[in-house]
Amino acid sequence: KLTNVKSMQENCRYNGVPEPTADSVQAICHECFICCCFALCRRPPKLREISWLLFVFFSSDIEISRAQSPKAVDVLAKEIGLLTDEVEIYGQTKAKVRLSLLERLKDQPDGKYVLVAGITPTPLGEGKSTVTIGLVQALTAHLNINSFACLRQPSQGPTFGVKGGAAGGGYAQVIPMEEFNLHLTGDIHAITAANNLLAAAIDARILHENTQSDKALYNRLVPVVNGVRGFSAIQFARLRRLGISKTDPGTLTEEEINKFARLDIDPSTITWQRVVDTNDRFLRKITVGQANTEKGFVRQAQFDIAVASEIMAILALTTSLQDMKERLGKMVVANDKKGEPVTAEDLGVTGALAVLMKDAIKPTLMQTLEGTPVFVHAGPFANIAHGNSSVLADKIALKLVGEKGFVVTEAGFGADIGMEKFFNIKCRASGLVPSVVVLVATVRALKMHGGGPNVTAGAPLKKEYTEENLQLVADGCCNLQKQIQITQLFGVPVVVALNVFKTDSPAEIDLVCKIAKRSGAFDAVPCDHWSAGGRGAVKLAQAVERAANQKNGFKYLYMLDLKQEHCNKGFGNLPICMAKTHLSLSHQPERKGVPTGFILPISDVRASIGAGFIYPLVGTMSTMPGLPTRPCFYDIDLDPITEQVKGLF
Amino acid sequence: KLTNVKSMQENCRYNGVPEPTADSVQAICHECFICCCFALCRRPPKLREISWLLFVFFSSDIEISRAQSPKAVDVLAKEIGLLTDEVEIYGQTKAKVRLSLLERLKDQPDGKYVLVAGITPTPLGEGKSTVTIGLVQALTAHLNINSFACLRQPSQGPTFGVKGGAAGGGYAQVIPMEEFNLHLTGDIHAITAANNLLAAAIDARILHENTQSDKALYNRLVPVVNGVRGFSAIQFARLRRLGISKTDPGTLTEEEINKFARLDIDPSTITWQRVVDTNDRFLRKITVGQANTEKGFVRQAQFDIAVASEIMAILALTTSLQDMKERLGKMVVANDKKGEPVTAEDLGVTGALAVLMKDAIKPTLMQTLEGTPVFVHAGPFANIAHGNSSVLADKIALKLVGEKGFVVTEAGFGADIGMEKFFNIKCRASGLVPSVVVLVATVRALKMHGGGPNVTAGAPLKKEYTEENLQLVADGCCNLQKQIQITQLFGVPVVVALNVFKTDSPAEIDLVCKIAKRSGAFDAVPCDHWSAGGRGAVKLAQAVERAANQKNGFKYLYMLDLKQEHCNKGFGNLPICMAKTHLSLSHQPERKGVPTGFILPISDVRASIGAGFIYPLVGTMSTMPGLPTRPCFYDIDLDPITEQVKGLF
Repeated sequence: KLTNVKSMQENCRYNGVPEPTADSVQAICHECFICCCFALCRRPPKLREISWLLFVFFSSDIEISRAQSPKAVDVLAKEIGLLTDEVEIYGQTKAKVRLSLLERLKDQPDGKYVLVAGITPTPLGEGKSTVTIGLVQALTAHLNINSFACLRQPSQGPTFGVKGGAAGGGYAQVIPMEEFNLHLTGDIHAITAANNLLAAAIDARILHENTQSDKALYNRLVPVVNGVRGFSAIQFARLRRLGISKTDPGTLTEEEINKFARLDIDPSTITWQRVVDTNDRFLRKITVGQANTEKGFVRQAQFDIAVASEIMAILALTTSLQDMKERLGKMVVANDKKGEPVTAEDLGVTGALAVLMKDAIKPTLMQTLEGTPVFVHAGPFANIAHGNSSVLADKIALKLVGEKGFVVTEAGFGADIGMEKFFNIKCRASGLVPSVVVLVATVRALKMHGGGPNVTAGAPLKKEYTEENLQLVADGCCNLQKQIQITQLFGVPVVVALNVFKTDSPAEIDLVCKIAKRSGAFDAVPCDHWSAGGRGAVKLAQAVERAANQKNGFKYLYMLDLKQEHCNKGFGNLPICMAKTHLSLSHQPERKGVPTGFILPISDVRASIGAGFIYPLVGTMSTMPGLPTRPCFYDIDLDPITEQVKGLF
Repeated sequence: KLTNVKSMQENCRYNGVPEPTADSVQAICHECFICCCFALCRRPPKLREISWLLFVFFSSDIEISRAQSPKAVDVLAKEIGLLTDEVEIYGQTKAKVRLSLLERLKDQPDGKYVLVAGITPTPLGEGKSTVTIGLVQALTAHLNINSFACLRQPSQGPTFGVKGGAAGGGYAQVIPMEEFNLHLTGDIHAITAANNLLAAAIDARILHENTQSDKALYNRLVPVVNGVRGFSAIQFARLRRLGISKTDPGTLTEEEINKFARLDIDPSTITWQRVVDTNDRFLRKITVGQANTEKGFVRQAQFDIAVASEIMAILALTTSLQDMKERLGKMVVANDKKGEPVTAEDLGVTGALAVLMKDAIKPTLMQTLEGTPVFVHAGPFANIAHGNSSVLADKIALKLVGEKGFVVTEAGFGADIGMEKFFNIKCRASGLVPSVVVLVATVRALKMHGGGPNVTAGAPLKKEYTEENLQLVADGCCNLQKQIQITQLFGVPVVVALNVFKTDSPAEIDLVCKIAKRSGAFDAVPCDHWSAGGRGAVKLAQAVERAANQKNGFKYLYMLDLKQEHCNKGFGNLPICMAKTHLSLSHQPERKGVPTGFILPISDVRASIGAGFIYPLVGTMSTMPGLPTRPCFYDIDLDPITEQVKGLF
């Protein structure tokens, strides 16, 4: 067992490799292969482990990413049939694609639409992103079938916090992964700017209304400019909503002026929060307005992580610029003192929000390690929104791949939550019909469901997970079976992808595939894409292709004529987005396998009217992650000479 | 006098043009030229006013901007001698330029370096940006001399708040102005992300230190990963600073562990604030940490506008990636309980900050309305920082224009503050020597200094400013004279550019130019670039060219061996950045002309150690603007069909 420099030095000496110097233990360790094997395995490595160990010690995700030069994005764009004026290049490796393409290709039939979902995961995640990427790599680079992966843009918070990036991993990655994980083309920054402009407008408006007479307020809202006094377009829209048809500001009655100028927001009902794309736990609950200039109008508020903004959910669900603008205007931010909803449109900010979001609406084109095209677009928080990438990226990709091509996208969380929202919310918004579901499972997660010990991020895995244990696997397959059944409720064929780890035994792998097929999966195949790239997912790709030709009876699980709590405000016909833990089929994360007999406790029901869904909260949902004692950023660095990023994963 | 729709309608009828309909007063007004002339002038227009009025009513800044199609930025890049791999294209109209160019052209002599500064302005601003842009348009498009404008990137806060954008105006603009004024290439967003990651790290660290024993803290900071325990590179750096030469985490003594693991930040000394690029007055003073998860560690804090971040000041002053990384690490965020400074490096976040800023360090290439190249790069808040665009953009531009070319850049505020900081702080950081100062004056501002009535943003100008008044002009020239003298203290020739408004009389214009020359200006010329583009600044360009060939005795006003308050922390040898109002030579905004006999009251002395200056506060300086009752965003809109932005100015 190697836990200190001294024993490492001894080991290096024993193995005849240079000893670590005092200054660079980390670097030297990587040169001493055998020493590292000991450190990790606590025994000499077995022959079959060598290639895996080589990979682990000599290639981090970012090193693999960097070892492959992406093709120039304008070349990629041409390859996939984009016209020059449909592409906005951002540097060498990223481009935005204009929505005009949808008009040009509107008569082109769509390709096949594949959703990658997962069983109930461990807190470590079971590899849905790597399966998504591995699958398109297999389809295009190995089977010569057009394909496209559509992925979420990750929040920068976790990249510097606990979780790390989200570009896939190993040999199934989007490259360059540092671009994917950092600012990308600025969409999340645009959302932050739009979200916070609206937040600032709410508090400033309350202050101005509270400190001015109707007349003063009205004179400022509708000023004389160069001798002329007129309403702006957005003020005309407000007049129309108030039923005032006058156009001359001088002719409004006192009552009309009062109705027009006062939104009369009840501060205690404000649901619109500020956001930052940083894990900043100290902003979870704050008091704002404490400077003298705000004249005592303090109130309690909070910051959420940027991807939790309703504007992100809108970006993911919108179908056009016009539609986005309408959704932005409809966002409800508070109630007035009579209990009526106050919207972004009432605050006069719809146009400005649309302007801030005008580039974000265009999907960003990147590529996998094997040159397959990828759209990265939108990443709504899976906790309180639907957690799926954008409708627009999927629509554009489905046109680009052509009728025989495949678009593969990923749902957040387990199938019970992520896939359910994908079907009932996203597919309803887009009108698109999925062809196949790929359900990702791991032996690790199945063992957990079979009664294995707790799996915790950061802590070493218990031996149940690193040694063969067929009983735990067999018992845990109940969760896989249940998720297959859930998928079948939607009428879509399901292929199980077993994401293989080096500790999985052949017997364990066989067992999972056998049970999966017995449980109704169209097929079940082990995948090695993480260590082998697309080559490791060829069998999966073949199974998916066959499944896509199956009969497809896709249907939503419920219609929108349900009666709901929010009906009385005219928001009755919206789909439901359950804000529930992904770590259990129930609301209790510790209940693994297939828990039954529980009653979901709904603590509150909230509405994202612009995005278009109601979200009941099952318990408390954190909307702002925190930084741990040792955040990821300790390992992140930039080489000022080569300009290379180190330590992202 | 037209103040309502009815009288407009009458006027239109009288002039035989279509009457405004109820729905579109604004639009119809623009079609009725005579009616608008009446509205503005309150009398029939004079012949010489016609072209100006045509401009005002038919062309807003954004309409002029849109009427001109910018050349493709890759064409522009080629024209100015950039190699393909030195350019990172962002869409059709923006590109980032890589710093490698400085190495390639290191033996090329620099061009002439021109600073545009101003007299003490009115709150409306006197047109330094338009002069800067008009001047390069004249030099390149009309005199066929290579030139480059280097401008600041504006904050998005004022764009949606009171002030509007900052792309110049009229026929002296950077285009497309909506790109210039909005996200651009994401630099301010990157600064926000880096600034807030550091802020989150400070509070999280205090929480973790307060709730854990030395041992627990140390075990988390230096965990066993895959059986190996090692320090990260940034932790080794901290050990070195603490004088601990050990490399094996297992061998530190308890005392060493305590020193290593505890930063022991005194929360009352935290100077690092969070930022947003939004005018959000309710964040001026807040209380953070009120959620239960933060265990009672609440404290008072504030958000500043993003451009007030020290990271912005660093971006503006840095000379390379290596230098930027060092400056980021040196930023002091608080003191520990012994009164010693705590830096970003101590928090382990230097590398992550550099990674977040790796693209922001590259200047953004755009163009003027007449196709002249422009760098837009960095825009530090002029209140508490030096308010100048970046050293790197200037350096690159000086190489690109060649020995006979000109680089024109702008200082914030009046010459007493903006130019002083440009010379003593920015030129000291860059080592560059300015060739000419262009001092911008307006008849309007001179009248104010001569005793004219108050000038307030948003209120109509008093008649003293719209009618000839030679006495007010003559009296007000004292401020111009003083600013010329200040410039001469630095040993640089000064050319006065009188930015002409349509209300200025020929006699007023002559008077200003005469007094300016008598006061020591190398030359003084009226400019019409706003309405005539580069053609209107040709005489200015010729004067600048002649002045650049004058003898130049540039010198700093002070050396860095002054004794200062911050000396005892080893920060003694830094230049001074006075945080003083720009509305008076004194600290009292209402004292116009050349006030004397005042004593500057310094309320506090603060330090930006990473950026490299000390800033004494002269009174209170607001670092967060607010939204007024009717913010600019009421007029801003996006046409969802044409994708055009409306209402920016």
